[in-house]
Amino acid sequence: MIIILKSDATEEQIKHIQEKAEKLGLQANISRGVEKTVIGLIGPEDVLRGTPLEIFPGVEKVIPVLAPYRLVSREFKKENTVIKLSHNVTIGEKKLHVMSGPCSIETHEGLRNIAREIKKSGGTILRGGAFKPRTSPYDFQGLGEEGLKYLKDVGEEFGMPTVTEVMDPRDVELVCRYVDVLQIGARNMQNFSLLNEVGKTKTPVMLKRGISATYKEWLMCAEYILSNGNFDVMLCERGIRTFETGTRNTLDINAVPVVKQLSHLPIVVDPSHGTGRWGLVSSGARAGVAAGCDALMVEVHDNPEEAFSDGAQSLLPKNFESLMIELKAIAKAISREI
Amino acid sequence: MIIILKSDATEEQIKHIQEKAEKLGLQANISRGVEKTVIGLIGPEDVLRGTPLEIFPGVEKVIPVLAPYRLVSREFKKENTVIKLSHNVTIGEKKLHVMSGPCSIETHEGLRNIAREIKKSGGTILRGGAFKPRTSPYDFQGLGEEGLKYLKDVGEEFGMPTVTEVMDPRDVELVCRYVDVLQIGARNMQNFSLLNEVGKTKTPVMLKRGISATYKEWLMCAEYILSNGNFDVMLCERGIRTFETGTRNTLDINAVPVVKQLSHLPIVVDPSHGTGRWGLVSSGARAGVAAGCDALMVEVHDNPEEAFSDGAQSLLPKNFESLMIELKAIAKAISREI
Amino acid sequence: MIIILKSDATEEQIKHIQEKAEKLGLQANISRGVEKTVIGLIGPEDVLRGTPLEIFPGVEKVIPVLAPYRLVSREFKKENTVIKLSHNVTIGEKKLHVMSGPCSIETHEGLRNIAREIKKSGGTILRGGAFKPRTSPYDFQGLGEEGLKYLKDVGEEFGMPTVTEVMDPRDVELVCRYVDVLQIGARNMQNFSLLNEVGKTKTPVMLKRGISATYKEWLMCAEYILSNGNFDVMLCERGIRTFETGTRNTLDINAVPVVKQLSHLPIVVDPSHGTGRWGLVSSGARAGVAAGCDALMVEVHDNPEEAFSDGAQSLLPKNFESLMIELKAIAKAISREI
Amino acid sequence: MIIILKSDATEEQIKHIQEKAEKLGLQANISRGVEKTVIGLIGPEDVLRGTPLEIFPGVEKVIPVLAPYRLVSREFKKENTVIKLSHNVTIGEKKLHVMSGPCSIETHEGLRNIAREIKKSGGTILRGGAFKPRTSPYDFQGLGEEGLKYLKDVGEEFGMPTVTEVMDPRDVELVCRYVDVLQIGARNMQNFSLLNEVGKTKTPVMLKRGISATYKEWLMCAEYILSNGNFDVMLCERGIRTFETGTRNTLDINAVPVVKQLSHLPIVVDPSHGTGRWGLVSSGARAGVAAGCDALMVEVHDNPEEAFSDGAQSLLPKNFESLMIELKAIAKAISREI
Repeated sequence: MIIILKSDATEEQIKHIQEKAEKLGLQANISRGVEKTVIGLIGPEDVLRGTPLEIFPGVEKVIPVLAPYRLVSREFKKENTVIKLSHNVTIGEKKLHVMSGPCSIETHEGLRNIAREIKKSGGTILRGGAFKPRTSPYDFQGLGEEGLKYLKDVGEEFGMPTVTEVMDPRDVELVCRYVDVLQIGARNMQNFSLLNEVGKTKTPVMLKRGISATYKEWLMCAEYILSNGNFDVMLCERGIRTFETGTRNTLDINAVPVVKQLSHLPIVVDPSHGTGRWGLVSSGARAGVAAGCDALMVEVHDNPEEAFSDGAQSLLPKNFESLMIELKAIAKAISREI
Repeated sequence: MIIILKSDATEEQIKHIQEKAEKLGLQANISRGVEKTVIGLIGPEDVLRGTPLEIFPGVEKVIPVLAPYRLVSREFKKENTVIKLSHNVTIGEKKLHVMSGPCSIETHEGLRNIAREIKKSGGTILRGGAFKPRTSPYDFQGLGEEGLKYLKDVGEEFGMPTVTEVMDPRDVELVCRYVDVLQIGARNMQNFSLLNEVGKTKTPVMLKRGISATYKEWLMCAEYILSNGNFDVMLCERGIRTFETGTRNTLDINAVPVVKQLSHLPIVVDPSHGTGRWGLVSSGARAGVAAGCDALMVEVHDNPEEAFSDGAQSLLPKNFESLMIELKAIAKAISREI
Repeated sequence: MIIILKSDATEEQIKHIQEKAEKLGLQANISRGVEKTVIGLIGPEDVLRGTPLEIFPGVEKVIPVLAPYRLVSREFKKENTVIKLSHNVTIGEKKLHVMSGPCSIETHEGLRNIAREIKKSGGTILRGGAFKPRTSPYDFQGLGEEGLKYLKDVGEEFGMPTVTEVMDPRDVELVCRYVDVLQIGARNMQNFSLLNEVGKTKTPVMLKRGISATYKEWLMCAEYILSNGNFDVMLCERGIRTFETGTRNTLDINAVPVVKQLSHLPIVVDPSHGTGRWGLVSSGARAGVAAGCDALMVEVHDNPEEAFSDGAQSLLPKNFESLMIELKAIAKAISREI
Repeated sequence: MIIILKSDATEEQIKHIQEKAEKLGLQANISRGVEKTVIGLIGPEDVLRGTPLEIFPGVEKVIPVLAPYRLVSREFKKENTVIKLSHNVTIGEKKLHVMSGPCSIETHEGLRNIAREIKKSGGTILRGGAFKPRTSPYDFQGLGEEGLKYLKDVGEEFGMPTVTEVMDPRDVELVCRYVDVLQIGARNMQNFSLLNEVGKTKTPVMLKRGISATYKEWLMCAEYILSNGNFDVMLCERGIRTFETGTRNTLDINAVPVVKQLSHLPIVVDPSHGTGRWGLVSSGARAGVAAGCDALMVEVHDNPEEAFSDGAQSLLPKNFESLMIELKAIAKAISREI
């Protein structure tokens, strides 16, 4: 921890900080510059957790030396985390995977039709929502367990692992019985009760970035999951909220290399939410692969005009097919494959 | 619903939209301008919920005519909602109330000491956290039920209704047994399971604005609560996330008059989180009252250096006392009282 | 300057940084913690300007100890700057001033009518735009010198100093001949050619905050003006751009106490642009005074429906009159006056 | 223009709007729904420019039907604009171009060395700053005309067209004498005097997006240039300001397909400013090409530690070389070439 003092900090104030630090087992290293005095606290920063040094008299600014997360950091684990799913799918290696499917699971037959198309074009993981977090209480809220059954069934039929969102800590056990990957949605990124609950399972988790979460906050939420014992976490960039209203969200493509530098966890890009308009999805998907992501999540629907949710950002199967051809070529251009 | 068509929309595309509308029981009113054609759909917009008209061929933009919320709107209920708490405290009338107390409940004795000071200066509602949503899994997470007991006890001793945060739908019943007002924190504003759960109780709710929630999204979350039967909801502006890093959050003072225009629900201002630094809290509190809020929430601690959380933004009792004197004068200046 | 090294920084990398520092006349103070090594550079930070230490091998983060601005800082000058204008108006003392008038100067007679009303209600400075920065090239661009003449004339008739925007460095001399205060608009906050030009005059300057400028960047722009010799600068908070679209801008009320802490320059609040809707202006103006500003800028028009610009956010004279009564009471409540 | 009325709008208010519209030559089409009345104004929207319909009594919201820009829009001109520069370089066709060079021009010899490396790797346009907009008045401000001479000279030696920033309307003529493309920097995007001045020349312009400019505002600024007669404008996405501080800016990759849809002008991506850290630049450059941009701008320096500016985000020539190999493969994957 580094403490920059105000120009007019007194000796008494310096002593007060020093005493506090020493009481906590830290060594205070005082460095007096021409204009400012700086105190470096040497020792485990963790003991300072909760001590608001910035309000101690004479203090201007406090700067932590260590990142607030541990288990998720690249420093803690140098090699990339690889997550093994059913049907020989692994996330985090040379081969990229594309998760695809409808926003909401609607009917068993409808899901089958979409899954068939996706599989044919090269999609390897099936997505579909059974519990839907909706802005309005009057919107369709998902089929619940019925939807989970369809998802499991169709995933097995086509040999695809499955992913679905869980919103309520009371549903975690239920959802684990049906799917391969638990999705934590953007709105629930900091729902700590839910994070603790999925952290106690052995099911892989995909943690979506909150709509206005910093990289640091996002990694701290992953830390919640890992610190409960579940290390199979992938992070999903799905667009952030900015001043721009010309798109639903702003896909933060920088997140891909930043996460790769800070963490060993795999990174997924979701250009459907990252743009919010189907006409922009392919461009965002290509950018995600070129930037170096480990997987994509793309919403596909065979009749978007009648979709129960997110029809506006769903690709038609034929557009998904063309996209997959481009993605394969781009992956190859950067020595990866799809 | 108003639909603006692309310049090159065809007659067939117009017919397709018209048919869809009529199938849903709406009347399509077509208006052909020099450059663009506009279709107005007359009838209940609700039937269009989920139909992504924006992807229908030929459509450029879709504009809803009605607000997406109903029960919370000023149009639904003209007169201000007044919420009655214990000890003759009512929120939403001429008299403003100041909710105050420590961020976290730490000890029974500590809470009593702070409550005594607050009461003396004119604070009328006691706040304190027992379940704490913390960015880091390694931070103090609150005393849980033990803390709730202290809060109830001290509130009764000093004749003050109490408010505390609930984070998990499984805790709602427990928390209701101890406090007068359930706080939904900013991070859980869109935790719809939790909103549904508090909506089923008869305990008043204070819904904090999410860190990057628009007014509309915030009101939609209140709508979740009201639509479950609980109409005693107050909204709390507690600062939003912007590009500015010189303060922890940006207190959006415009929210006060905007909420008053759009909704009948009372509005609370929290300058502690809205600024994040105790040296700015008084200024924000004064601005909140001057702008027309119905209540304030201000964190106070008698030893911020040792506070378990949010020490940096807590006022000392003596500063709270001076602030209350200013606030009373400002309230009077705009024909209200504290 | 403080340099935090990566965990795996080598001795050679440390030596490379040390040598660079010493070559520039700085002393490198190396502190080796358990996990990280930190280097403190002691001496004038200015010599490092332009040296990108963050890319030196082994460096994780670089933290400046000193603020990047000097002349504008509270540390440079403890007492508040007071700016003297004509007609015995001074900005930065106990008495607050309200600058008011139409967005655009339209006609001589129209300006007179508005000025008369403002003066009657207690406004003391007359504003009006002659050069208008407009989002569209097809919008009304202002009357130019003709407008400046009206402004000067009407200001003298009613005994009010005047303020108007200057947009082009080539117009600075011209505008100085007519008005008391040069306004730099939000869009031109970082128009450094223009800042240098107004910095060379002796005319007071009101520097509006850029729509997405941090406090630090804003103060750096004031530093441009002061470093050219013109110390009569006031800062104007006029709302920032955020994700919220329910208002035109978000009035950042925190800016008032923050600027007061960091700088000796007076601070003005503009609730007209800070809200963008006349129905919210009074609330923002009251908040500004309560928060501690030194002056307000409020747009007033006697026929907003026909105003050439910003009619939507202009107050009618009768609303301005009621507002002034409230403002006087609030100023008194915090020991100031209007 | 579409006007949505308040639920309680009176007949008199409707008539008032109708009369205003008819006076301006528009036809008012009134449509009465169950809850709301909507007025469609048919005729040229331009006559309403400046009339603040939103404050007319009874009005709730006003929605323009037409985009505010004309000349830059895809509707005005269907085919892509192609800009021809010297040395057979054309922007806006199948072949992508990479503009590269140092942030600041420092010495003649230094610029030659960098240009030689860039040319060898496949860069086709030479960039370098002679007039530098710097956050601090104490930073290096550029070599001015001396720098322009070096740029012209080196560009000719290596057969590369050149691009440099112009900041002051008084310098436009001078800069035109030396370079092929005038760059308008992000800070000056809304410097309308400067836009008018470059619009009067015949030199192509690269207009960078302001740090918090919406797509619409950006296009309006291009409209300023085109409306002055200069149609050779390219737009440059260079990162926007968001809440995220882990990168200098957030590269808005969505801007590429959005601009392509809305406008016929070519789009350039600048991953150097879009990320702010050299370790992220390659990822952003690859994403830009994959997303469909027409050109890239990448800062390169052979000794970033000693660069006069932006050393932190400059690539070394050897990294630029590797990047170009990847970019060629990605371009090919989407049927373009570099």
